[in-house]
Amino acid sequence: MWRRIERVGSGAIGRGGWAGRLGKKGGGSLVEELRIGVLGFGTVGTGTVRLLLTNGELLAQRTGVRFRLVRIATLDPQGDRGLDLAGIEVTDDAWKVVDGDDIDVVVEVMGGLEPAGSLVLRALRNGKPVVTANKALLAQRGEGLIAEALRSGVELGFEAAVAGAVPVIKALKESLAANRIQQVYGILNGTCNYILTEMREKGLPFATILGEAQRLGFAEADPSFDVDGIDAAHKLTILASLAFGTPLDFERVTVEGIRHISDVDIAWATEMGYRIKLLAVARRSGDEIELGVRPVLVADASMVATVEGVFNAVFIEGDFSGTTMYYGRGAGERPTASAVVADLVEIGRNRRSGARGRVPTLSILPQHLVPLPVRDSREQSGEYYIRLEVRDRPGVLAQLTEVLARFGISIDAIHQKGRSQESAVPLVMVTHETTERQVRDALVQIAALDPVSEPPRLIRIESGLA
Amino acid sequence: MWRRIERVGSGAIGRGGWAGRLGKKGGGSLVEELRIGVLGFGTVGTGTVRLLLTNGELLAQRTGVRFRLVRIATLDPQGDRGLDLAGIEVTDDAWKVVDGDDIDVVVEVMGGLEPAGSLVLRALRNGKPVVTANKALLAQRGEGLIAEALRSGVELGFEAAVAGAVPVIKALKESLAANRIQQVYGILNGTCNYILTEMREKGLPFATILGEAQRLGFAEADPSFDVDGIDAAHKLTILASLAFGTPLDFERVTVEGIRHISDVDIAWATEMGYRIKLLAVARRSGDEIELGVRPVLVADASMVATVEGVFNAVFIEGDFSGTTMYYGRGAGERPTASAVVADLVEIGRNRRSGARGRVPTLSILPQHLVPLPVRDSREQSGEYYIRLEVRDRPGVLAQLTEVLARFGISIDAIHQKGRSQESAVPLVMVTHETTERQVRDALVQIAALDPVSEPPRLIRIESGLA
Repeated sequence: MWRRIERVGSGAIGRGGWAGRLGKKGGGSLVEELRIGVLGFGTVGTGTVRLLLTNGELLAQRTGVRFRLVRIATLDPQGDRGLDLAGIEVTDDAWKVVDGDDIDVVVEVMGGLEPAGSLVLRALRNGKPVVTANKALLAQRGEGLIAEALRSGVELGFEAAVAGAVPVIKALKESLAANRIQQVYGILNGTCNYILTEMREKGLPFATILGEAQRLGFAEADPSFDVDGIDAAHKLTILASLAFGTPLDFERVTVEGIRHISDVDIAWATEMGYRIKLLAVARRSGDEIELGVRPVLVADASMVATVEGVFNAVFIEGDFSGTTMYYGRGAGERPTASAVVADLVEIGRNRRSGARGRVPTLSILPQHLVPLPVRDSREQSGEYYIRLEVRDRPGVLAQLTEVLARFGISIDAIHQKGRSQESAVPLVMVTHETTERQVRDALVQIAALDPVSEPPRLIRIESGLA
Repeated sequence: MWRRIERVGSGAIGRGGWAGRLGKKGGGSLVEELRIGVLGFGTVGTGTVRLLLTNGELLAQRTGVRFRLVRIATLDPQGDRGLDLAGIEVTDDAWKVVDGDDIDVVVEVMGGLEPAGSLVLRALRNGKPVVTANKALLAQRGEGLIAEALRSGVELGFEAAVAGAVPVIKALKESLAANRIQQVYGILNGTCNYILTEMREKGLPFATILGEAQRLGFAEADPSFDVDGIDAAHKLTILASLAFGTPLDFERVTVEGIRHISDVDIAWATEMGYRIKLLAVARRSGDEIELGVRPVLVADASMVATVEGVFNAVFIEGDFSGTTMYYGRGAGERPTASAVVADLVEIGRNRRSGARGRVPTLSILPQHLVPLPVRDSREQSGEYYIRLEVRDRPGVLAQLTEVLARFGISIDAIHQKGRSQESAVPLVMVTHETTERQVRDALVQIAALDPVSEPPRLIRIESGLA
């Protein structure tokens, strides 16, 4: 499975000893070859192939390895991607990729749970390292795949699953390994961030901007994975495992999307010095962890607020590192390809240097993975933004504040615009620190008050962010 | 030099085969030990020791390696650092660290060229990997040390030399290895960034803020390494080598510090929508590279401008990744210790997994390092900010613009405040794109004009930044 194809420089070096001699002899006197099979030839597959064809010489110089594309499986083998595929087999038989004796490493960029899951599992069983960009597969079936990779003693790389080319996976697994991680948070879905940015800048409602994003290719025809927060939750699942040494467990993430975010709320947030962001947060809280994806208000002056459009940013707080931040395009053909090939580089360099099992797949040795209790999101405390639509009758404020007081909620600020006894006017409140349970319970009673004309809107305020 | 100390789980595994078995047997069935010697017990040394004592158990779980402190060399062995040093030898004999048979890895955090350089060289000759935070040593003598590390087949780690815990070294060597890097730029010196931030926010002159920074411990008693740009140039030397595959060559970096930046210029920049930052830039420009550290004007709306105080940020533009950004505290006991121990983790994991020569020290195989021609900074083109102090006499503008026209420089904007025929008033101009040579030559003639009362100030405007 691993062949030497070329010898640069002088002197024959025996097969067995070459890795050991590398250091002694000046390094890189041999160039080896890694034969690559690719599953999926859509956006990311095309980018990966384009990168390997474009920068193959540079990669060889940096790694001493030739990354050779052998076979690509796609449902549309005849499609024209504007690439010179001479010498590369394009097939519609994905099993020929994972079973082929002429394939050393499998790149899975087809997406979805099946058949991707079965193909990746088979590749690993066949002893082939796998590089995948498939966050859904990892978040929902990662444990089985990781166990299989461990049994076979091969790598399972997934840098491309989170934040495009931005190396947050490697940062957590390697660069910050000396730290006890306190929290990881960030903007993990470019589609949502683009929509929220456009809503704020143009003052238009969600549906209008979503349609525009779909036309521009920034949102899928079926946008639910993105706008309902699921994609960000998949990514958060992965980051939380790496940060806290817990098994992957997508089911425990609290998820709330951005469909219900109104341009009215965005305008209010802006006026009050905030922006609304879909924020993914994994945080230690005592002996528990908080795991949530939801729209929140963040202060204008925070760095999180400056992350706009399709960009992603991840903030990692360690006990020694302090907060470090990683920023870039979170998706797209070329950035994602950069991350896929980074994992191929890792695998190639491991092979060439003789490394086996260098870095645990989830950053900690498997026997030390510990499932941590996840705090019920309703028990998390924080400040909240509440928007009510009320008919402005005498005594309405007294009614509202009486309910809030009964639930132990104190109010930091109340804003009201316009006055009308017939039609409703917005009334915006910011609470002091309270739990989500308290505020939700209070809102059930407030919603039933006669002057309140619409279901109350509730958005958490995340303070203390970098 | 490399001993097994502990066996967890069942079954004896022979010495030779354990790395190979790691993958097959589930990983981490053995815990090995890395015996560490530290050179220097100042801020970073104290942080490194504190980290290893605090997070040793976590490190063992993440790596399967015990990082054991054996010996620390310092000129002040009796000093109290508030650490429990039981079982650790503290000595004033640094050679006992680099020559000791009971030391597997040497951490050099003493700083300076000598004796650090001789000690690091000796450690490498003795076959001990070295981790250093010493950017001056790397930038000025790195080539010899790298050659020695290669001959000995051991690692030379220097993540801590640039941007504290922020993993820009690993990003360039590994995560972005698939990219042809177009440019690397950023804010690499926290002292200068703190001073410039404070000057802007408080409207006070350089000397006042420097004194304040020295009292607060953000600047050294002798601040010249920082404020004259030398420290940032050392770091840029390292980043440029990694980015472009060129040998380390500090001498070729154009360096200009911030001593001459006046609060008047900062106020003007602010009024015009800019901030002044000490920016380090390594950029491909045709077949040459530009290498410079200097104060520049950056647009308020750029991300670079949002990096304030003691923070560092590095922006890396690759042909596939696009621009990714890395941000955090650039110095200090704990962040720098995080980076030092990240390199120890790398070395420990390499040992445990059997890897030799996994990643080339400068990110590319040594035989492919190519010295690239460095463009004379005076031939770089850009826009410039010029401030003159002129006595406002009739015809003065005509005189100035005549000189500029003669040198082919066109002006985008002219600002003037106040009028006085006796005392001088500031006159600020922003040029269109021109070369630094043209504008400097013109300023020599302008400085000689009678109404011009002070040497002209010239600051480059960096546009097109992320």
